[in-house]
Amino acid sequence: MKQWGLYCSRCSARLPFRYQDMKCECGGTLLVEYDLELVARTLTKESLKQRYSSMWRYRELLPVEDSASIVSLGEGWTPLLRMPKWENKLSLKRLWIKREEQNPTGSFKSRGFSVAVSLLKEAGVTKAAVPSNGNAAGALAAYAGRAGIQAFVFIPMDCPSLIVDECPLYGATTILVDGFIHDAAAIIEAGRDEQGWVNVGTLKEPGRVEGKKTMGLELAEQLGWTFPDVIIYPTGGGSGIIGMWKAFMELKSMGFIQGDMPRFVCVQEEGCQPIVDGVHPVSTATSDDSGDDLPLLDGKIIPNPTGMRVPNPPDLPLLLSIVQQSGGTAIAVSKKQIADAILSLGADGISSSPEGAATWAAMLVLSDTGWLRASDSVVLFNTSHAMKYAKLGTSAAIPIIRTYDDYMIYRSL
Amino acid sequence: MKQWGLYCSRCSARLPFRYQDMKCECGGTLLVEYDLELVARTLTKESLKQRYSSMWRYRELLPVEDSASIVSLGEGWTPLLRMPKWENKLSLKRLWIKREEQNPTGSFKSRGFSVAVSLLKEAGVTKAAVPSNGNAAGALAAYAGRAGIQAFVFIPMDCPSLIVDECPLYGATTILVDGFIHDAAAIIEAGRDEQGWVNVGTLKEPGRVEGKKTMGLELAEQLGWTFPDVIIYPTGGGSGIIGMWKAFMELKSMGFIQGDMPRFVCVQEEGCQPIVDGVHPVSTATSDDSGDDLPLLDGKIIPNPTGMRVPNPPDLPLLLSIVQQSGGTAIAVSKKQIADAILSLGADGISSSPEGAATWAAMLVLSDTGWLRASDSVVLFNTSHAMKYAKLGTSAAIPIIRTYDDYMIYRSL
Repeated sequence: MKQWGLYCSRCSARLPFRYQDMKCECGGTLLVEYDLELVARTLTKESLKQRYSSMWRYRELLPVEDSASIVSLGEGWTPLLRMPKWENKLSLKRLWIKREEQNPTGSFKSRGFSVAVSLLKEAGVTKAAVPSNGNAAGALAAYAGRAGIQAFVFIPMDCPSLIVDECPLYGATTILVDGFIHDAAAIIEAGRDEQGWVNVGTLKEPGRVEGKKTMGLELAEQLGWTFPDVIIYPTGGGSGIIGMWKAFMELKSMGFIQGDMPRFVCVQEEGCQPIVDGVHPVSTATSDDSGDDLPLLDGKIIPNPTGMRVPNPPDLPLLLSIVQQSGGTAIAVSKKQIADAILSLGADGISSSPEGAATWAAMLVLSDTGWLRASDSVVLFNTSHAMKYAKLGTSAAIPIIRTYDDYMIYRSL
Repeated sequence: MKQWGLYCSRCSARLPFRYQDMKCECGGTLLVEYDLELVARTLTKESLKQRYSSMWRYRELLPVEDSASIVSLGEGWTPLLRMPKWENKLSLKRLWIKREEQNPTGSFKSRGFSVAVSLLKEAGVTKAAVPSNGNAAGALAAYAGRAGIQAFVFIPMDCPSLIVDECPLYGATTILVDGFIHDAAAIIEAGRDEQGWVNVGTLKEPGRVEGKKTMGLELAEQLGWTFPDVIIYPTGGGSGIIGMWKAFMELKSMGFIQGDMPRFVCVQEEGCQPIVDGVHPVSTATSDDSGDDLPLLDGKIIPNPTGMRVPNPPDLPLLLSIVQQSGGTAIAVSKKQIADAILSLGADGISSSPEGAATWAAMLVLSDTGWLRASDSVVLFNTSHAMKYAKLGTSAAIPIIRTYDDYMIYRSL
């Protein structure tokens, strides 16, 4: 008998736990619900002091039954780096960067897939598929490799090629899709029954949100069980925002922490900004950005923030309600602002993904406009390394498809 | 008054502390000596349990006087990952990989440069230079950037281009050298006085060995204050071996740990194997490796272990004495063995540098020959990510030189 169930984030319906299909009948997203009184018996501030520096220190708040099912590569408990020089420059009380690129697959995606793949292992699943703008594909590939599960990854072809190439290195069947991430998702849905794939796309299963939740748990613990005032986060599908919000709710319920929730700021790229448009129905973008790529380092790094390119987030209403309830906001930044931010962070010793740099760019704007106040403590997330976004030709060995039929043709060759 | 001094690892002479020129008159290498009784008053197993998960938890065993001088980007306390499947396959008691690629600059070089740059900052130095096969250059560039020190990096031109390109991203003056790492070192020595560079090359200053030492301190602490039986380490200049050996000596002196030292195994690349030749004066290499590059993933990743390409280690006698005293050995592996190992580790979810993969290849050989025993617990080091070794053209903006005169010509253009 599992010690946790599911609840609908929209209509509050309760359901037994399962490891796939997270849509409620009402259309809301199902999330994992724990017996927090039971959890609090063993998970205490005191007990945490003795635990190992991994995201699995929060074991009781992750939905894996048997410790033997945990698929770990050394994820979580990433450094929270203070930026004192910039606190002075920008008149902020505190400024930190959470260095998520120090996860085992070089990106924050390790967290979600450590939990998701553990759940698949516990359920005896043998094949998993994901539509991904890149880092999620690499993370599924790595964790599935470790678990002995076959991985199938479908990646829009504008994704930086090194991030694509990691996937076959980890042994995954790797396919490029001539389309957006929802086109990749449609291919998986079309082939799911026939192929026996479990779809581990965003909000399709419970593990990834629970894994991302550990970013919030860590943040609270690393800040001595206090909240920062503002969290600035690069947002595509939004499972990180949902996960951190859930983490803070659980910590509040368990009495670990009091006070106001942080204000959540979702950062997106100009031109692909559904959350920004939802928060500000009349767009406030004033950039004269041409939309062209702005190569850095003699053309080798293209600040191409594909991780934020999710035109149709799986549960936009949930994201909007979190942002608005928290007193947060959403902001779109241009490629030019992202390119400048990569260089600013680099000069301070930090190699940042375009998505991570976007949080820096957003912070500068919010500081300029006065939305950020001198009393604010602010946390940014660097999600991956700059060098993973280097420009390389696409590997000739990786097929490019548009539909599930194309996939079947490719497999029959 | 500093609480530490220097001692000569060859003639045992004692000298006052300084931050450069680590050669004793006798030709031996000078290392930092602490008052271990004083250290043990505050650095205890109990106090460590309360400390933050960073290599600076061993603060009293690092030669930085003022905490304000510490230049940190979130280095150390990297995961030690068990490989249970392979323990069974190879009949080993325990097998771990220390995941050094999870350091802030994506490689184990973060550790040494965090300490080295802190010492430079404490001394008021404004310009630092390093000859490097790549990852050290990136680490100097990042830490110097963070500290506001100008970095000058000189890199042999066979170094993977992404690793080269990181350096200008961090704001370093970046120069490719048509030659080996000792040619790069000669350029720095030639220009040192004129340019005001402090040379932070291997064993030229005390910080890098002390920083690498934290790998040994962590290993002992993560294993519950026990030694593994065998450490397999990719060896170029050898500061990691010297550092870990020093760590273990200090821990033994302080009573933290008893028993035999681990057997140190140095891994090198066939054809550039001074340590192997020193340990086995008649080479035992039997490979029919052609010496050609063996590209992976459709030609994009070249397993080019430049980090091990140090034909003249700065203190070969010290390395040989550590390896031999410990009951260890040295072994050269081929590019083919390294390429196979990258794929084996990838299939288990680990993205490994060619140098890290070389330790895997060496382990397979030592297991085959019976040098590794069923009672052995073994630790390998993965030093960086596979993807950093992707093949890209050299950036046209980075000059290629042979001599210090070439450097002066380049600067005058």
